[in-house]
Amino acid sequence: MTHPIIFDTDPGVDDAQAIAIALRHPAIELLGMTTTFGNVDVATATHNALLLAELAGREVPVAQGAAAPLVKPRHPAPAHIHGANGLGDIALPAVQGRADPRSAARFIIDTINARPGEVTLVAVGPLGNLATALQLDPTIIDKVKQVVVMGGSVREGGNVTPVAEANIFNDPHAAARVLTAGWPLTLVGLDVTHRCVLAPGHMARIAAGQDKLGEVLAGSYGFYRDFYQEMLGIDGCCPHDSCALAWLIRPELFTTARGHLTVATQGEAEGQTIFAPENRGYIEPRWSRTPLADVCLGVDGKAVVEWITETLA
Amino acid sequence: MTHPIIFDTDPGVDDAQAIAIALRHPAIELLGMTTTFGNVDVATATHNALLLAELAGREVPVAQGAAAPLVKPRHPAPAHIHGANGLGDIALPAVQGRADPRSAARFIIDTINARPGEVTLVAVGPLGNLATALQLDPTIIDKVKQVVVMGGSVREGGNVTPVAEANIFNDPHAAARVLTAGWPLTLVGLDVTHRCVLAPGHMARIAAGQDKLGEVLAGSYGFYRDFYQEMLGIDGCCPHDSCALAWLIRPELFTTARGHLTVATQGEAEGQTIFAPENRGYIEPRWSRTPLADVCLGVDGKAVVEWITETLA
Repeated sequence: MTHPIIFDTDPGVDDAQAIAIALRHPAIELLGMTTTFGNVDVATATHNALLLAELAGREVPVAQGAAAPLVKPRHPAPAHIHGANGLGDIALPAVQGRADPRSAARFIIDTINARPGEVTLVAVGPLGNLATALQLDPTIIDKVKQVVVMGGSVREGGNVTPVAEANIFNDPHAAARVLTAGWPLTLVGLDVTHRCVLAPGHMARIAAGQDKLGEVLAGSYGFYRDFYQEMLGIDGCCPHDSCALAWLIRPELFTTARGHLTVATQGEAEGQTIFAPENRGYIEPRWSRTPLADVCLGVDGKAVVEWITETLA
Repeated sequence: MTHPIIFDTDPGVDDAQAIAIALRHPAIELLGMTTTFGNVDVATATHNALLLAELAGREVPVAQGAAAPLVKPRHPAPAHIHGANGLGDIALPAVQGRADPRSAARFIIDTINARPGEVTLVAVGPLGNLATALQLDPTIIDKVKQVVVMGGSVREGGNVTPVAEANIFNDPHAAARVLTAGWPLTLVGLDVTHRCVLAPGHMARIAAGQDKLGEVLAGSYGFYRDFYQEMLGIDGCCPHDSCALAWLIRPELFTTARGHLTVATQGEAEGQTIFAPENRGYIEPRWSRTPLADVCLGVDGKAVVEWITETLA
């Protein structure tokens, strides 16, 4: 089975790895990429998405989207993690192509409406483009095949606050809309991405298996790895965004739970994804009022990393 | 070594088990009990604390405290969990003694000041009495030996909301004061109490080893057990409050982490204990501004339950 997908992204070092997978894996048909601010500003995200496709020798539509959150002020992009250029500050070749004239949200709506019931949305950045698509055309809720979101944390704690993961924290209002829209949705968050470590040996195999794109993946990885070493004492990096694709293609490597998501949009918990397991009673009925979704809570991390490496090597 | 303790409590079925331990364990010197609303209203809590000591043939001061939260309105007591009388609605004998004339907070202050550096506060209900003691005499921060709090949850999720544990949720403002006071504090929360299950076989051994008190422990256990069976599918109950005493006497059965606690006092996360591990950087410095505390994250649950049973059998 082939999965036609739209990849919503803010590349970003780990986004680049996932884009390489989406470009190469035989079971993925990459219909287009939509870009958002997040790891970088949105213009840089668009540049990088175009560049990565070109380095792979592919023409893929790239539609630019959110430059800022829906409601809150934007935090500065984390240049210490992804580099100011989003790809570890390595020198990059010039881009030949141009972005699609449509906005990201419009591209998402058009693409889903053209193939109702077929398209999977894979979103690995802040969720503004999906939220705006829902604002412009809520009928996509019933036309999308499924939505896979890399973001959030249920048991693992956060990475930008003790409880919030970066993608959700960067636009919690958009996340609240997207995670409670009632479309078939799976959350792939830190509970599983932190169990996956792409080590230098894996990246060596990846770089050897890719031409020009491999140089960018390996070069940006070196920068990103320094952050992980300093911050978390890990030799390697967590391939967060690739995990969303791993879930799509190899769901048997994950364990999930079904329940109701609530996104905290303010206060100490801002950006937290609050998960109420299905049929669990609490002091107030509010927690079970949002639609059901699936969240990944466990993973065979080694197998996922091996899948990533084999796909790209 | 003997630990002189004040036991702050809202008995409550699992409180009663812990009180029985505090009355019997040779390494615990029970200086007094202070009572609060929580599992029951405060008058019932006081009645039950007096009764449990009398059934054990002991005279222990009982000082009544908070009837309501510091700031928020009070939620109704959970009669479906502990019974309307706090002890599973079994018939109870009459109480002979009377409460200490002092308020709980005053009793705490007097007792700590009388033996500076010696007294451990063990608090297993909402934290209003400790908060008021800090309001009346903040110098106890430097005079208490240590504070052990049964409450909160870091990774486990909550029991009254998806993120909040009942004791903290019942008075989050008091908890915010107590958990960030800067005294030597250990949080014993759902991360460990949910790993401990007191099964019917354990309770049979306990009841056989206690006289009149055993009848109350076994009778109330039956009611509490029904709740666990229905709600969580567990045959037995989590002896939450006894875990705080297990930590005091057998800390080697637990694993802890050191870090900064923040209590959410409003919004979706109301009552959540947010834990920022020591030296972990986040997007804002606010998370490391509260004093350091220890939180229990792991436990040998079987060994704790065996310790409880042996102590009482």
